[in-house]
Amino acid sequence: MGIGDDAAILKCNGLDKLVVSTDTLVEGTHFKVDDDANDIGHKCLAVSFSDLASMGVKPQWVTLNLTMPEFQSYWFEGFINGFADLLSKHDVALIGGDTTQGPCAVTITVFGEAPLEDIKRRGHAQVGDLIAVTGYLGSAAFALANPYLDALCDKALHRPTPRLDMIEPLKNIANAVIDVSDGLLADLGHICLSSNVGAKINVEQIPVRPVIKSQSDWLQHALTGGDDYQLCFTFPEHKKNKLPKDCSIIGVVTANPQLQVCHHNEPITFQRFGYAHFN
Amino acid sequence: MGIGDDAAILKCNGLDKLVVSTDTLVEGTHFKVDDDANDIGHKCLAVSFSDLASMGVKPQWVTLNLTMPEFQSYWFEGFINGFADLLSKHDVALIGGDTTQGPCAVTITVFGEAPLEDIKRRGHAQVGDLIAVTGYLGSAAFALANPYLDALCDKALHRPTPRLDMIEPLKNIANAVIDVSDGLLADLGHICLSSNVGAKINVEQIPVRPVIKSQSDWLQHALTGGDDYQLCFTFPEHKKNKLPKDCSIIGVVTANPQLQVCHHNEPITFQRFGYAHFN
Repeated sequence: MGIGDDAAILKCNGLDKLVVSTDTLVEGTHFKVDDDANDIGHKCLAVSFSDLASMGVKPQWVTLNLTMPEFQSYWFEGFINGFADLLSKHDVALIGGDTTQGPCAVTITVFGEAPLEDIKRRGHAQVGDLIAVTGYLGSAAFALANPYLDALCDKALHRPTPRLDMIEPLKNIANAVIDVSDGLLADLGHICLSSNVGAKINVEQIPVRPVIKSQSDWLQHALTGGDDYQLCFTFPEHKKNKLPKDCSIIGVVTANPQLQVCHHNEPITFQRFGYAHFN
Repeated sequence: MGIGDDAAILKCNGLDKLVVSTDTLVEGTHFKVDDDANDIGHKCLAVSFSDLASMGVKPQWVTLNLTMPEFQSYWFEGFINGFADLLSKHDVALIGGDTTQGPCAVTITVFGEAPLEDIKRRGHAQVGDLIAVTGYLGSAAFALANPYLDALCDKALHRPTPRLDMIEPLKNIANAVIDVSDGLLADLGHICLSSNVGAKINVEQIPVRPVIKSQSDWLQHALTGGDDYQLCFTFPEHKKNKLPKDCSIIGVVTANPQLQVCHHNEPITFQRFGYAHFN
């Protein structure tokens, strides 16, 4: 493995499968120019790590392509510090990349090796599976709409924690996994579409922070708020007693290929904002 | 291997080393908004392929992150056609990526597997090695300064051919290889710095198209013109008879860690434009 040549060289450990994910985040769309640079560095990497967490694979290597309009050392140092702190926290190596002059954008590509049987796919949900999510949903969306109202929600928005801690606990439990980046309905919709199944969820079971639940629009945040980077997964009911802490059961996988939003098992009507991928 | 999950899954073939290279190209810096979109798609990929060619490794997989200010189908189709044509010509698979809204930029990450002993490094030049280059140098720089004067130079600038054809012929010959992206002096400088050696080159031996050689500034293009994506490599003198066609010997690796520009072995003074990396 080396930096300085035209490419990095990775030593695969013979685990057979290399999992690769790549994301571009653009100033104006994914972060703001006046966001804290350290937060931006953290969040860009967290988003990439979250993709691998949803595959059940530990990140091992990353490349970073950083485009900046001009070199401002205080911004660059802030960004790199936020990036490097999360990198070293999870013992991941930066193996290459480049810096380019241009409108501010960040592309991160993340790699991890795993045996095929450990890799989670969104298309593996089974009818009858229970549906669960980690942590709290809607926190980031709430903070976006209500900045500085709740520190924990602000943190969820600006410094999300990728759920790499769930890789091991979910290894022998989950059938299908996805990270909640576009909102619960959209991302659970991806699982349903890929698995050719449907889902029925109960809104009162969705874990939402009390500060959000006290607002009239809490359901909007809970169902369609993206950017939380929690995991949503399905698992067989008989493994219910192995469900890790910090996970909440919110519904069940159905044969009818629709996504039913219920309240105490009674269907409710919900305006489907931000829910474009699933019909 | 699959698209549609949060990440692509690659099956490594057990060749032990995975070589990864990533580049971002930005509109305004690396290509112009009114360049032909098909050419842009071709060139962005060619630049990435060239990095792997310089490592002696055949590209097998790529990811593409495409950022566009708005979706214009004619531009997108042109770009993708240029990209896909070069991809399929070399039997390389697109395994993932994303599209994002923002200022136009392209990030390509390219992967190839190889046994360690086949991987070329720029730090492996040996004192006494001969120095050679593929094809012609300075063509792209000439076309940039003199558009529409020579079709072959225009092609070198807008649709460069990555020298993947040189991977096999150079496998058992070259010690150190680099692609000429920043200009001969800069890139040969990288080899010298990495290998802790120097170089002596004869300008009359540098392969330059006749149309360029007839100009007063030909040497400027030949020595500092970037963007040609030819290969520059060093090899032991006793392998001289195995030198592939389309290669020209231009000098020799020296113990004295300087880069000497000569004319018939007599040092000449050359103003070092665009030659920032090597002291």
